[in-house]
Amino acid sequence: MDAGLFTANNVWMMLATALVFFMHTGFAFLEIGLTRQKNTINILFKNIFIITGGLLLYYAWGFNMMYPGFEDGDAGIFGFAGFGIAAPENGMTPEYADGGYTWWTDFLFQGMFAATAATIVSGAVAERIKIGAFMIFTVVYVGLVYPIVGAWKWGGGFLDSWGFYDFAGSTLVHSVGGWAALVAVALLGSRIGKFGEDGKPKAIPGHSIPMATAGVLILWLGWFGFNGGSVLSADPELTSLVLVTTSLAAAAGGFGAFLLSTVLYKNLDLTMFLNGILGGLVGITAGADLMSPNEAVVIGFLAGLIIVGGVALVDKLKLDDPVGAIAVHLICGIWGTLAVGIFGAKAGGEQLLTQFYGVVIVGAFCVITSLIILGTLKAIMGLRVSKEEEIEGLDIHEHGMDAYPDFTND
Amino acid sequence: MDAGLFTANNVWMMLATALVFFMHTGFAFLEIGLTRQKNTINILFKNIFIITGGLLLYYAWGFNMMYPGFEDGDAGIFGFAGFGIAAPENGMTPEYADGGYTWWTDFLFQGMFAATAATIVSGAVAERIKIGAFMIFTVVYVGLVYPIVGAWKWGGGFLDSWGFYDFAGSTLVHSVGGWAALVAVALLGSRIGKFGEDGKPKAIPGHSIPMATAGVLILWLGWFGFNGGSVLSADPELTSLVLVTTSLAAAAGGFGAFLLSTVLYKNLDLTMFLNGILGGLVGITAGADLMSPNEAVVIGFLAGLIIVGGVALVDKLKLDDPVGAIAVHLICGIWGTLAVGIFGAKAGGEQLLTQFYGVVIVGAFCVITSLIILGTLKAIMGLRVSKEEEIEGLDIHEHGMDAYPDFTND
Amino acid sequence: MDAGLFTANNVWMMLATALVFFMHTGFAFLEIGLTRQKNTINILFKNIFIITGGLLLYYAWGFNMMYPGFEDGDAGIFGFAGFGIAAPENGMTPEYADGGYTWWTDFLFQGMFAATAATIVSGAVAERIKIGAFMIFTVVYVGLVYPIVGAWKWGGGFLDSWGFYDFAGSTLVHSVGGWAALVAVALLGSRIGKFGEDGKPKAIPGHSIPMATAGVLILWLGWFGFNGGSVLSADPELTSLVLVTTSLAAAAGGFGAFLLSTVLYKNLDLTMFLNGILGGLVGITAGADLMSPNEAVVIGFLAGLIIVGGVALVDKLKLDDPVGAIAVHLICGIWGTLAVGIFGAKAGGEQLLTQFYGVVIVGAFCVITSLIILGTLKAIMGLRVSKEEEIEGLDIHEHGMDAYPDFTND
Repeated sequence: MDAGLFTANNVWMMLATALVFFMHTGFAFLEIGLTRQKNTINILFKNIFIITGGLLLYYAWGFNMMYPGFEDGDAGIFGFAGFGIAAPENGMTPEYADGGYTWWTDFLFQGMFAATAATIVSGAVAERIKIGAFMIFTVVYVGLVYPIVGAWKWGGGFLDSWGFYDFAGSTLVHSVGGWAALVAVALLGSRIGKFGEDGKPKAIPGHSIPMATAGVLILWLGWFGFNGGSVLSADPELTSLVLVTTSLAAAAGGFGAFLLSTVLYKNLDLTMFLNGILGGLVGITAGADLMSPNEAVVIGFLAGLIIVGGVALVDKLKLDDPVGAIAVHLICGIWGTLAVGIFGAKAGGEQLLTQFYGVVIVGAFCVITSLIILGTLKAIMGLRVSKEEEIEGLDIHEHGMDAYPDFTND
Repeated sequence: MDAGLFTANNVWMMLATALVFFMHTGFAFLEIGLTRQKNTINILFKNIFIITGGLLLYYAWGFNMMYPGFEDGDAGIFGFAGFGIAAPENGMTPEYADGGYTWWTDFLFQGMFAATAATIVSGAVAERIKIGAFMIFTVVYVGLVYPIVGAWKWGGGFLDSWGFYDFAGSTLVHSVGGWAALVAVALLGSRIGKFGEDGKPKAIPGHSIPMATAGVLILWLGWFGFNGGSVLSADPELTSLVLVTTSLAAAAGGFGAFLLSTVLYKNLDLTMFLNGILGGLVGITAGADLMSPNEAVVIGFLAGLIIVGGVALVDKLKLDDPVGAIAVHLICGIWGTLAVGIFGAKAGGEQLLTQFYGVVIVGAFCVITSLIILGTLKAIMGLRVSKEEEIEGLDIHEHGMDAYPDFTND
Repeated sequence: MDAGLFTANNVWMMLATALVFFMHTGFAFLEIGLTRQKNTINILFKNIFIITGGLLLYYAWGFNMMYPGFEDGDAGIFGFAGFGIAAPENGMTPEYADGGYTWWTDFLFQGMFAATAATIVSGAVAERIKIGAFMIFTVVYVGLVYPIVGAWKWGGGFLDSWGFYDFAGSTLVHSVGGWAALVAVALLGSRIGKFGEDGKPKAIPGHSIPMATAGVLILWLGWFGFNGGSVLSADPELTSLVLVTTSLAAAAGGFGAFLLSTVLYKNLDLTMFLNGILGGLVGITAGADLMSPNEAVVIGFLAGLIIVGGVALVDKLKLDDPVGAIAVHLICGIWGTLAVGIFGAKAGGEQLLTQFYGVVIVGAFCVITSLIILGTLKAIMGLRVSKEEEIEGLDIHEHGMDAYPDFTND
């Protein structure tokens, strides 16, 4: 491979890495925007902890646990290539990874992905989880659960051998986060005031819809890198197809949720529009490189409808998910994974079944490990802050500060 | 063309696309920052509708209406290459577009442009337009007017045959939006309280200048892609020249507006500084690839002066444009288009005349079509919300929610 | 060099330029977030002035003062290649700069750096400096001091001949800004209320921690370009190593500050976490291309500890630095510069001594020039706003406007 192509590939992958990093700003904005002012510092603290801690964990051992060097046909379940990220021979030459990028780029791109799973959980458990418990959970989940599941497919493990397909992580990232969010929300219980005495859900509005909107736009932008970088080179045809399918699915997802929610609830609900965009993005992620533009629009549009139903279902189940993480990341993550068997280049009954098995196996593993981790933490230290703290806000109690201390209105 | 060059070109164009997409975040911040809190959700909703709807329209037929396949010398006025975006033969190889990018990249880059015209209108009509009327207007304007005008020049139509030059859209994007903004503002009338009984304009301050400032900085960043991507390849000399002229014009535009407004009004007006930057950016857009750095500074600086005059003129005409869209996008769009005949590689009397004809023809078409669309909507459903709704805010009336529902100050 | 490689290099450098430009948004958010609402417009105005003015100065003469064409072994101190930025012969071909980029890209990348030094000062002097004095200071410092110091190393001057190493500017950018911040803070005195009658520092909380957090994340993102672009080509191995060391140092810096501040002060201090990230970034900047990932973690972690001590030291010295600029940019800038002699490919006693000499010489020059400029301004026009203005806020007095004029809470 000539130096120009290798360099162009690596440039694309480094910028995709930067864009995935920027998604953490998007998540932070989205989460604080949709929650109350009194818990803003707490949520930001969690997000900053996740990015820094997640990257350090991935450097310490996560990368080598996710890519343990399974050989073709190994059907591996667990492997570990050692601590640290010493580069292999030829790790910086086109011989590594077919010239798609260097070893360093590989690490950093994957490292930026790693923290995402924990961030998804962060939004769902906001406004009531103990920060200490969440930090420990994050370390174990990002440090162990995420890379082990990742190794099954992207590391060349048994799901890969079976033919399971997940291009950029509808299952491996979004559902992995979404399952833990589901377990955590179930164990934590709902926020005070979320369900009335009649059991009916009450909206607890957030404190800045502009921030939430900016968060979604930044996440869409970040998805250019999340999906576009998952081509693992700058292949012109594939990368540009992926950007087209990703953006069309986002647009169609937003539109689907907007139309359905307008018909059902008779008001122009911006939050649903935004969640529809995210649902479309998560939905296309598993097969963004396999779909035609038309198929991407269909997958995205259906994801938008699913979001409206999903949010209602979560409410119905008396689960309290302040930011809609379960509907967006878990339900649309499952939808996107199955869609690979229904639409596009790999569509077919066998593929659909394999996708289904993948969803179930990953789901079972994530639910069980989440139950163990969070159950243990609940037994030892408790997951939930005191009633007083929840009412007065986590910012003052855990951080001794307010998010807008000098904001005045005179 | 070797694979390295083709790949590097396409990487640049994909990232330019991402940057143009990010401009929508900039527009959203700018518009809500300069308007009142009670209409924030409404503006964000419009912006999200424009991005998603605009992209879907461009996918459905806009792209094929803007690039209908006019042949050299056709002097075409209207053409249509069919629904959808099926790629042509060789659409993904260096044979397409001289290896500058793939067909998919082409579509997405142009698609991100398409929505911009409607966004420009959005700011000018803020705080009083009926959301339903605006959505219908957007669909027709982005779906029909924008691509038809675009075809005249970028699609190889009659303006192109005449030698009209508009590198990245001072006319084709900014004026197209600006003319519609002018018509809409004239038909809508001014916001309650904008003009006193003496006819003198009163400032109606926005609700977050920090957001407006961030919006302008994001727009400047996005212009790296807007102008830089309009080279349609990563040609090192041309792309880097374009970034230099673009940034120098932005800086000089800001400075021009800052100096003139300080002299005239004796206060350090941040909003005018910001609008000067935008004016410089719009002003350089038509000829960013033709100008020397010195010429870019002159064009930008004059655009900055024009902004100060333009804002005063709009007020004088009793037009109420909350964000200064007419001065920035229409007046500086015209200035930038004419500047191609005055400065730089194509300067000359004949070119100036051609530029003038282009401005007039596009202006006439946009004004007429806007009048038809908005006039029809006004007759059928009305353009303007009720007095009560305008006073209480569009957020509560149209969306049933508040932008900062949990923002407290205790 | 083939066209593909040249183009890929230039694409990387242009996008690095865009990322460095985006850092100004990060600085703006950080500074206003950590200061009081009543001075927000003033700070934003300063930032916008710095970006536009800085770029124009660098175009007018700064670039040619920083890169005056010293020959190898010249040991030059001052040179000037003339006004404007006319491109040299072959400035757009691979013959220029070993094909790493074009002359235009070179100018714009360096131009985006130039303004940074003044921005660092802006945060430290916030809430009490006269805007006129600050603008004049900025013009002289960015227009003369910064490029002269830059020429000593990056322009091939005497520090370069001595073997002084500063990859991306721990000294040449961050300390240059930091020294001026120190002098300015000392001359200005502390804000009213910062030190009690007992001499003990009192926290003056800012007005939006979410904005400050977003600012830090944007700065981290921008550092991908700041350090990654300082490779001056897209060399796959070097650029990707630099991104890895930069991100690991940022993460480790945040963690170090988080751990130490939690141990010392027993609360989870988000601001300290954020400043630790910035400290790690500044600390790795001088040697980002020389360090292994392990060394980057150590350097970053130590920078995080230094931040906690540095902030306490600045307080102890009764210096009032609202955003922590002295600890972050000056102290960690010195640390990063010295670290080149302690860790990594160039470690050694002689190198450490050279690094030390560089720190001292640059420091002496910056302190002396800052004293002259600011001392002169103090004598002629005064540096500090009136007591009344400081209490009522600079926004109303200097700009006649409020940052959130229509923000309501009913």
